[in-house]
Amino acid sequence: MNGAQSLLQTLVNCDVEVCFGNPGTSEMHFVAALDSVPQMRSVLCLFEGVVTGAADGYGRVAGKPAATLLHLGPGLANGLANLHNARRASTPLVNIVGDHATYHLQYDAPLTSDIVGFARPVSAWIHESKSADAVAADAARAVQAARSAPGCVSTLILPADTAWNEAQRAEQKLPDLLPTPVSSAAVDAAARLLSNGRKTALLLRGAALYGAGLEAAGRVQAKTGARLLCDTFAPHAELGAGRVPVERIPYFAEQIVDFLKEIEQIFVGAKPPVSFFAYPGKPSWCVPEGSHLSYLAHAHQDGAQALAALAEHAGRSSRSPVRIPLQLPELPGGPLTALGVAQVIAMTPDNAIFADESATASFALLSTMARARPHTHLPLTGGSIGQGLPLAVGAALAAPGRKVICPHGDGGAAYTMQALWTMAREKLDVTTVIYANRSYAILNIELRACRRDRQRSGRNVDARSAQPGNELDENRRRSRRRVQPCDDM
Amino acid sequence: MNGAQSLLQTLVNCDVEVCFGNPGTSEMHFVAALDSVPQMRSVLCLFEGVVTGAADGYGRVAGKPAATLLHLGPGLANGLANLHNARRASTPLVNIVGDHATYHLQYDAPLTSDIVGFARPVSAWIHESKSADAVAADAARAVQAARSAPGCVSTLILPADTAWNEAQRAEQKLPDLLPTPVSSAAVDAAARLLSNGRKTALLLRGAALYGAGLEAAGRVQAKTGARLLCDTFAPHAELGAGRVPVERIPYFAEQIVDFLKEIEQIFVGAKPPVSFFAYPGKPSWCVPEGSHLSYLAHAHQDGAQALAALAEHAGRSSRSPVRIPLQLPELPGGPLTALGVAQVIAMTPDNAIFADESATASFALLSTMARARPHTHLPLTGGSIGQGLPLAVGAALAAPGRKVICPHGDGGAAYTMQALWTMAREKLDVTTVIYANRSYAILNIELRACRRDRQRSGRNVDARSAQPGNELDENRRRSRRRVQPCDDM
Repeated sequence: MNGAQSLLQTLVNCDVEVCFGNPGTSEMHFVAALDSVPQMRSVLCLFEGVVTGAADGYGRVAGKPAATLLHLGPGLANGLANLHNARRASTPLVNIVGDHATYHLQYDAPLTSDIVGFARPVSAWIHESKSADAVAADAARAVQAARSAPGCVSTLILPADTAWNEAQRAEQKLPDLLPTPVSSAAVDAAARLLSNGRKTALLLRGAALYGAGLEAAGRVQAKTGARLLCDTFAPHAELGAGRVPVERIPYFAEQIVDFLKEIEQIFVGAKPPVSFFAYPGKPSWCVPEGSHLSYLAHAHQDGAQALAALAEHAGRSSRSPVRIPLQLPELPGGPLTALGVAQVIAMTPDNAIFADESATASFALLSTMARARPHTHLPLTGGSIGQGLPLAVGAALAAPGRKVICPHGDGGAAYTMQALWTMAREKLDVTTVIYANRSYAILNIELRACRRDRQRSGRNVDARSAQPGNELDENRRRSRRRVQPCDDM
Repeated sequence: MNGAQSLLQTLVNCDVEVCFGNPGTSEMHFVAALDSVPQMRSVLCLFEGVVTGAADGYGRVAGKPAATLLHLGPGLANGLANLHNARRASTPLVNIVGDHATYHLQYDAPLTSDIVGFARPVSAWIHESKSADAVAADAARAVQAARSAPGCVSTLILPADTAWNEAQRAEQKLPDLLPTPVSSAAVDAAARLLSNGRKTALLLRGAALYGAGLEAAGRVQAKTGARLLCDTFAPHAELGAGRVPVERIPYFAEQIVDFLKEIEQIFVGAKPPVSFFAYPGKPSWCVPEGSHLSYLAHAHQDGAQALAALAEHAGRSSRSPVRIPLQLPELPGGPLTALGVAQVIAMTPDNAIFADESATASFALLSTMARARPHTHLPLTGGSIGQGLPLAVGAALAAPGRKVICPHGDGGAAYTMQALWTMAREKLDVTTVIYANRSYAILNIELRACRRDRQRSGRNVDARSAQPGNELDENRRRSRRRVQPCDDM
């Protein structure tokens, strides 16, 4: 057995069954080792952004990590944007990066780079194996780290000679580091606050947005009247008919302020609501002034358990949790609009998974989908576009029996369209819908707002060029072409 | 004037005329500021790998930096692989990355990340502007850093409020930090070594591979008989008829060893020759044992000046420099092969620029092009695939009157095909040739070698599965599909 074989066998022993890869020469011995570990499903992607986005989608749906296989620092670099998204989604993910042989690094060959430096901003755990014999134990530890609550990206760097040199054996799975239970004192304190008559919201995260966690949240809501909220881009939510309804925090700062304005106390699962971007003269921090903020459960704690305990604590109530009713839209006629597309998508059968990067079309899509059949929603949590298509690849591999829908803006789709190849090659049941408005539509909205603000503040350069024939006109026309007019999508 | 306008005016004052961008919301004020600085040509790219690769191509051909405009950490992350290539090519490049407003960072909104961390492995200079008033001076310094010999990536991080807040003024260009001349004592010492009768090679880098530097190298060669060599992926070389011939170091370790075996002393411009990757049982360090290694000029020194001084020092000689003769191939007939494609490409008119990512097809291409009309050659210096198409974009913008040819493997082309959109939009004179062998052909070669090595060493897992019906067979077939059989390309 060589180091590469010990790696793959250890990953399989640790319940890692899928490896998304875009290997190169320094990873050839890992590729060759796949011959001897048939339990590992290897999925080739034609760009590393697809590799890491697919591993994120797999981890969100399967609740356990897939592995990646990336080619040195530059291969990792191409996958970083979707690792950023995975980090923001707290997805369990074992990120494996090949490197030059340990003795080759000193020569600074062209592909040599600071892999740890690239990996640090996205990784909660990083380690570089020092020898073939160490690879198995390192891999077991990488899986354990990735599975630690609430889930994270762990990066294991494997020099080429740790693959081809002989190794003693594979390792078994290490125990999971389970989420900490929330103490009964903390639950008592929360229950007291929930009965103080203030207008209260629970900002749900992680496992509180699906399954038993969501059900428990519904019981707390029924008993206390608290509003249930989730982040604009909550990484994994169960939506649609029969589910407990959760209000999604809107995108723009002024909308968030309006949305939260009557709230007097908020329980958070992780971070309080803030605006996605800063804008001149608008708030970043969107919690109403004077309102009370508490943690119910920290990110490493068991939020679903805390909600269940809280529901129990609040005693019996005759009210049962609210449920979303099924309300399918009419099939649309007339011209193709974002709303019309949403009305068609809303006909999707039960239990579908939406890998959603619908961008500006999401306003119409989410409202139309709200009362559609039950489904799982996986949005672009970290805001780095080009994730939806890879996410769909990973989701489809994690849940072979379920329909995957991928509604996607064309701007983001142009980033990682290589995912379509893997969908075809692996015969995945993914329906991709590209909103082809030939524009970064969100930037048209933002640029208009930016120019309007400058006009208001009297610092507007456009005003100078309002007369016909002004020398800036041509340049402005060119600069406007940069972010083209959006249609109704 | 706001910070964004002071930035753009300063860049123009510093002779930065082109900005390749893929901006987002946090960069909208920079986009709006383009209205007021018409001297800056803004080129939209639909993926950041295209942005940074195009800036590399521009810098290599123009000999001065273009700017990028990237969207926070994830936007930078998508551009890192081609910044790695630019770093390896010592390309002058001003890499501008937008960030959240200074006061917004504390809230850790979804797109927040460690931008400095991402940038460090590829940047020789990094700075984050602290206020709108500081932006102009920071930008002037960033350009100065990028232009410092031999050229580098300088990264300037600009929080959104440094764009929209008021600034006092733009700044003027700072003096260039010129390359250090090589001392006459060093030239004397080199001249003595060159006359000691040993078999000598000059490994040329940077400006020694084009223009006056290459001419001077030719004169040294004529007078001393030293061989002239360049790296396998020398970033910028002038090739073809009429030029001084330079021998290119081959790719594989065993080829390099054979290529250098008679050399007794080597003068290097930067690093001694090493193999691109390590392989079990093969050398990484390819300099013949016992041979003498000297620097003629370090990377920050003026290698072209040193060669000119050396040519002068060696005294008069009746021999003039060798020149490459023009020898155009016959137009090919029969089936389409890598050689046939090369024979057609070799008909390209005078003074073309080759943005070359022909990968395994380069063996046929480079030998056929050797005696073609004079041209400039820009290869994939850092080894991170997906650079050729963006490089062609930048080269075409830097040299509008010259034909740009982009011979490209399909594996790498799938990485940054978004460049085709910018070529069309900017009406660039680029002819792209994709070698569509539907394979990572180099990996087929490497995987075959890797399996052969394991067979030889008796550790071969394939041997176990050679009998029909072996349970590994199906998995092996699947794993083989991953890197498909290559044809003659």
